[in-house]
This record gives sequence, structure tokens and C-alpha cells, in this order.
Amino acid sequence: MENEFVTEERLQLILELLEGKKYSRARDEILKANTVDIAEILEEVIEDIGIEKAIILFRTLPKDVSAEVFAYLPIDDQVAIINGITDREIQHIIDEMDFDDMIDVLEELPANVVDKILEKSTKEERRLINTFLNYPETSAGSLMTPDYISLRKNMTVAEALAHIKSEGMDRETVYTCYIKDEGRKLLGIVSLRTLVVSDDDVVVESLMHEDIIYVNVLDDQEDVSDTFKKYGFLAIPVVDNEKRLVGIITVDDILDVIDEETTEDFQKMAGVAVSTEEYLDMSVWKHVKNRLPWLFVLMCSYIITGSIITSFEAVLSQVIVLVAYLPMLMGTGGNSGSQSATLVIRGMAVGDVDLRDVGKVLWKELRVSFMIGLVLSLLNFIRICWVEGHGPWIALTVCGSMLVIVIAAKTIGSMLPMGAKKVGIDPALMASPMIASLTDMVSVVTYFALATFILGI
Amino acid sequence: MENEFVTEERLQLILELLEGKKYSRARDEILKANTVDIAEILEEVIEDIGIEKAIILFRTLPKDVSAEVFAYLPIDDQVAIINGITDREIQHIIDEMDFDDMIDVLEELPANVVDKILEKSTKEERRLINTFLNYPETSAGSLMTPDYISLRKNMTVAEALAHIKSEGMDRETVYTCYIKDEGRKLLGIVSLRTLVVSDDDVVVESLMHEDIIYVNVLDDQEDVSDTFKKYGFLAIPVVDNEKRLVGIITVDDILDVIDEETTEDFQKMAGVAVSTEEYLDMSVWKHVKNRLPWLFVLMCSYIITGSIITSFEAVLSQVIVLVAYLPMLMGTGGNSGSQSATLVIRGMAVGDVDLRDVGKVLWKELRVSFMIGLVLSLLNFIRICWVEGHGPWIALTVCGSMLVIVIAAKTIGSMLPMGAKKVGIDPALMASPMIASLTDMVSVVTYFALATFILGI
Repeated sequence: MENEFVTEERLQLILELLEGKKYSRARDEILKANTVDIAEILEEVIEDIGIEKAIILFRTLPKDVSAEVFAYLPIDDQVAIINGITDREIQHIIDEMDFDDMIDVLEELPANVVDKILEKSTKEERRLINTFLNYPETSAGSLMTPDYISLRKNMTVAEALAHIKSEGMDRETVYTCYIKDEGRKLLGIVSLRTLVVSDDDVVVESLMHEDIIYVNVLDDQEDVSDTFKKYGFLAIPVVDNEKRLVGIITVDDILDVIDEETTEDFQKMAGVAVSTEEYLDMSVWKHVKNRLPWLFVLMCSYIITGSIITSFEAVLSQVIVLVAYLPMLMGTGGNSGSQSATLVIRGMAVGDVDLRDVGKVLWKELRVSFMIGLVLSLLNFIRICWVEGHGPWIALTVCGSMLVIVIAAKTIGSMLPMGAKKVGIDPALMASPMIASLTDMVSVVTYFALATFILGI
Repeated sequence: MENEFVTEERLQLILELLEGKKYSRARDEILKANTVDIAEILEEVIEDIGIEKAIILFRTLPKDVSAEVFAYLPIDDQVAIINGITDREIQHIIDEMDFDDMIDVLEELPANVVDKILEKSTKEERRLINTFLNYPETSAGSLMTPDYISLRKNMTVAEALAHIKSEGMDRETVYTCYIKDEGRKLLGIVSLRTLVVSDDDVVVESLMHEDIIYVNVLDDQEDVSDTFKKYGFLAIPVVDNEKRLVGIITVDDILDVIDEETTEDFQKMAGVAVSTEEYLDMSVWKHVKNRLPWLFVLMCSYIITGSIITSFEAVLSQVIVLVAYLPMLMGTGGNSGSQSATLVIRGMAVGDVDLRDVGKVLWKELRVSFMIGLVLSLLNFIRICWVEGHGPWIALTVCGSMLVIVIAAKTIGSMLPMGAKKVGIDPALMASPMIASLTDMVSVVTYFALATFILGI
């Protein structure tokens, strides 16, 4: 991207103009930008010279711009601005906002502020807002907007275009239009492209698609984003359990969902509780609360590893040099397992691997791990025998263990996520930390058992 | 998603129809589906009853459908089909395909097939295709299409709509239209929505946006997808170094890019070489080649850990029980570090954390790790003293080490990815395996040094 608007210089200029109370010049400067960038600048203004100046600047923006900018601000800044402007200004912003953005804002605002806003809405609006506020946070319902274009099947193209012309600016999108029957059931969809390239007197019914891909209002947002990825649509209709059209979801909102879902997977795979809060915004206490439980659970698993070691104390005390190779064996086991786990988890997430493939995956991992284990074992054999001079029996113990451990780790690493999915647990929870703990146990048992056997202790 | 078309029953029905050579009934059944689903069915047909029947079925599809279906097939199946149909049929498919899909196909096909196709193109087409084939694989250039709608600034809305009507069906999108000057420099963009809601005699110039967000043809696809995420556009113009418009990228192609980039991050974070090949399609040998190097590098780091242990052999041989706590200390260190690394890497990827925040991140991690370290240490103190009865000095050694190790691990885990970004290395490479190896060294040194000091050995 070459035309980054929010440069250090421009930011400095705007801050200086505000410090010097040159508000209208600051406004003119800021209005050259896209609304997304204006929001970014406003965030910086709040952080650098405080909310008061930011509110003065915000108030100088044209009404339609300020509503859009407001929608892009983080929730803390939204609340700060709401607290600094008049009720009438709040009302203006809410009226100008897209319905789905408004719902997002209302979901985050304190209850007393929401009440203040709802007071001024009509009864019908209040009912609709309350319905939307009640959908589960990660459902299709919480992503959708009721602001779509409805056409009747017996309209002509000319009538449809006239209808779009009159309503187009208030709708989330005009590029996909929806045709319903009297019972609000979805009959078909027609794209604006089709309407624009068709002749004026053609009837909408003859143009509409009837094999419609839709989602249910209670479907999880991950399923919704998978549907978008699969079909590449710009918008998808959302229906209730009676198949009545209740809203639409547009692709721009899905980009955020995809980021959210990816972050969730990363968090799960690192053994951190899932959270949508930003890293820096989260309190120390919350960070501790999100990280401690898994660390504790995994730590307990090491009590088992520790007691296995204790039971082999006799071996250890005789051949103390064995301890020096323990970190390598455990570490390589953990890394091997985590490679396989990550590849399988990601493969399942994007649909390359599914549960039917369990045999193929196992067979592949067995061959891959055998080859990798063999190479690493041979390298170690050379090192231990010739470089470190510990003799072939120690080398054989370490290398035999290495081979077994790599094979075991890759088998566990690939099968555990698939097993988790089979029983309905998120495979992402079976990633590195979990696999490493398990392979550590396997490593210790294998190593000391082999030592007892080979070294005859 | 409730209306999954590709059910086990429907698939079975189609396979039976094909086995029974009832091709036209199979075609009628398959044509009820979306083209994406038709491609999915065709894949299954190829896998289950072979390419011959699949080709017969493919040939019965209407020309425009077959081109779209072809674009959605995996490359192996595309090559198989190309080899089974006539040159004229190949030409038909290529002609019907969207330009960017065609480039994707040509990029993957064997050179002799590409030559056969290019032979039949006009000179101008060949030049354009060759230009597109030469853009780096992950650049904006390789994602874009030259099939956009161009308008002139002095056109009226009526003229613009008439132009869109005549060209609309051959263009990648009609929803964003582009206005260029005589030198092909981009002057402005106008959305179809704006055109449709405006009056017929308004001039395009008065409607167009001039503050255009664009990308350079050589920008990396990750920057392109970040731009889409930031602004929520349906299409973004691509310009060359002289700011001339050379193509556009549409949002549906970005969804695939986002998936690809995420997979890359996962691969890097697991210490696997980056590859876009599907898990099951990749040969055992390629899997080994992608995984062995990092395992080898990390294994070498354990040689250092091992020699640290060897240098403390005197301590170990006297208090052999210390070995039992080593896996717990190393494991918890690795897990703590990997939590911090993952949070910081992801935070930087989505833009929540940037390099300026290094002080804030460090201060946060220090406090979080101190609290977590303290809790885990106390729990271990109780266990070692009262449950296992090893006495306070062993307990103090283990718990003191635990506190130091957790703090060190979280500091390394958070700082290393930021340092990597600072010097231009992908932070994702500094994830769990790397962090675990480093914290293992720290763990071993801390533990044995503390043991020497506290136990007075």
C-alpha cells in the first residue's frame, strides 16, 4: 500500500493545529482521509492530547462522516465520546449508523447509555434492536443487518431499479437483492449486475436464482465464514427456523470474523484462554487468569513424568551421563509432535483433511517419522560415539530412544487432534503444549526402559 | 449452513447414474447445484469411479458452467481433464474463464499444455497473459484481473449505465468502476450504487471519489489483504510504478489469500517449511524435507543444554532427585514462553501491538510472569515439602528456579518476536519450538546454579 494517509508528519500537523485551537483547519486536513483513517487519527488524538480536543474535532465533522468514524473507533473511545456530547448528538450518530454497526455499539455500551438511546427510538425500532441484541455473540444473528433490498417477483427490471434508486443509500448493500413471498420466506435472489445488464421490461422472477445458499440465524460465525470462503459471495441471507428471511451478512463483516477465529485458534494452540480483548488493553490480572489454568494442568502432567524418573533412579545414579541427553530427547519429541499436530489441525480447519482420512494420515506420519527418526538417530550415533567418545552402548540407547520417540510423537501429534474432533472437542486444544507433555512422558519411559535393557542395569 | 447440497445420498445417486451410463439424468441432477458444489461432486466422481466417467459428465455441462466448474477444480484434476478433452473444448473453457482464474490455471499447467493454449490466442492476448504470468507468485500482480469497468469522466450516469449494461457480463465486477486519464493514470472510482441512485444526466466526474486507496502491482499479497481488512472494500485498484491502473483485485480472491497467509503462519510457528501444497497431496519425501531442517537445528541447540548438564554432573550425582523435577521446570518454561510468544506474534499480525509498544509489553509480561511464577512456585513448595517430604532446601531450589524460569521464559517469549520484527525477520519464526529450546537452556543453568548455591554442593 503506497498511499498510507496516516503518516507521522500529517499526524503531527493535525496535533499542532488542535493544540493551537485551529479546529476548522484541522477538520479540513482530516476530511481529506477515508473514514477508516479519520478514526485512526482520532484514536491518536485521544491518546496524545486527550479526549476534550478529540471531542471538539469530532463535533466539527459532517454528521454522516461522524457516524461512520464513530463506528470504527474502539469501544473505550466510543464511551468517552458518548459521555462528552449531547443527547441530541448521540441520537444523530445512532440514526446515521448502519444497523449492524449500531447493534455492535449498543452491545458494548453500559446499560444506562443504551437505555438513554432506546428511549428515543420508536416502539418498532426498540423491538427490532432488542431482538438483535439477544442473538448469541458469535452467531450469524449477531453479524447480520435487516437493511437489505427487498424486491417483489412480479416487478419489472425498471421498477426494481427505481426501487433501488429510492432506497439504495440506506441499505447495507444493493448488490444482492432479495425476493420474498407473503410469508417472508425467501423465494430467490438477484444481483444488481443481472438487473443492470437486463432490459427494462424483463420481470424479476425470470432473472432470480432459486438455489439459494443461506445460513441459519443461530449458526456459528465460523460456519458463516466457511460458507463465504467456499462460495465467494458478497452477501449471504440469514433465515430463522421457519426459513423466513431475517437479515443478511455482507463479506466486509466476515473479514473481521476470520481474524477473530484465527486468533482464537492461536490462543487455544498456545494454551491460553480464548479472549477477543486486545493484548495491551487486557489487565495483568486477566492475563494471569487466562494463562495460569493450562500451565497448572500441564505442570501436573510433569508430576507423572517426574515420578517415572524417580522410579528409574537406580539406572540414573549408575550412568549419570544419560541425563545430559534427556533434554534433547524430550525437546525433539515435543517439536516433532507439534509439527504433526499443527499440520493436521490446520489441514482440518481449511478442509484439506477430514476424519475419513485418519488411515492415510497415520500411514503418512509413520513413514515420515521413521525417516526423520532414522536421520536424527544416525547423526547422534556419530556424535556420541566418535565426538563425545561415550561408546556404542550409550549411543545405541540414545539413538534407539530417538527413533521410538520421534515415531511416537508424530503418531500422537497427528492422531490426538483427529480423535478430539471425533468426540467433538476443538482439535486446536490438542496442540503443542498438550502434545509436548504427553511425548515427554513417552520419552522418559522409552529412554530409561531402553537404558535398563541395553546397558543391563 | 443448512442447505448443504453435496450430501452422501445425492453423491451416491449421481455415482449410480454414472455407473449405469445415465449421463443426462446425472447432468440434470448435478446442475441443480451451485458451480462450487458441482466441482466438489466432480472431484468425488474422479476419486471414486475414475476420470473417464468424470470427463463424460463434464462434457455434458453447458459451456459457461463447465468453465466455472473447471476453475474450482484442484490442479491435478484440471490437468487430467485437459488431457481428456479436445483442443477445441480446451479453447472454449479458456475463453469462458475469468481472466484471473485463467492465469491461475496457466500458472499450474505443464508448459506444453500452456503453449497449446497460447497458440490459439491473439497476439495482444498472448502479450497480456505473459505479463501476468511474470508477476511474482505472492504479489498483487498475480491476484489481479484486467477485466474491470472503465468509465470516462465526462460520461453522464445514463451513458455510464449503458456502458456497464453492454460490458457487465464479461467483467470481474461491475460494482466499482474506474475512471482513467489519457495516460492510463487512475483519476477516480465510482460505485455502481452511486450511479444507480443518481439521476441520469449527472456527470460521472461529479460523483467519483478521488482519494483512492490502491496497491502497487509488486506489493505482497499479505499487504493487500491487510488493506482489504482495514477498509472493507469490495475491490482495490492495482497500479504500476508510474501510478497507471493495470488491474483490480476483488474481495472474493482475498478470502483465499487470508487462509493461505494463516496457514503459512501456523507452519512457521510449528517449525515446518512453508508450503501451499495440501497435507495429503504432499509426498512423504517432501514432508521429511519440510520438517527435518528445523528439527535438526533445534536438536543442535540441545547439545548446548546437554553440555551444561554435563558440567553440573557433580551436583547431579550427589542429589539425583533433582533430575525428577527437570522435565517440569523445562516444560513449564517452554509453555510459559510459548504463551507469550503466541500472544505477541498474533498481536503484531492483527495490528494490536506494534514495535513502539515494546516497553509496555515488557512491563506487562514481567508482572504477569511474576504472579504466575509465584503461584506455581508456592504450589510446588507445598508438594515437595509436605507431600513428597524432600525437605525445604530441595523445595527452595525447585521453587526459586520455577520463579526465575517463568519470568525469563515470558520475557524471552515476548521480546524475541518483537526483536525479530525489528530486524526484518518474520516474528512467526520465533514461536514455540525456538522459544522452548532457548528457555530449556535458561532452565538448566538456573536450576543447577541455584542447586549449587542453595544446597552448598
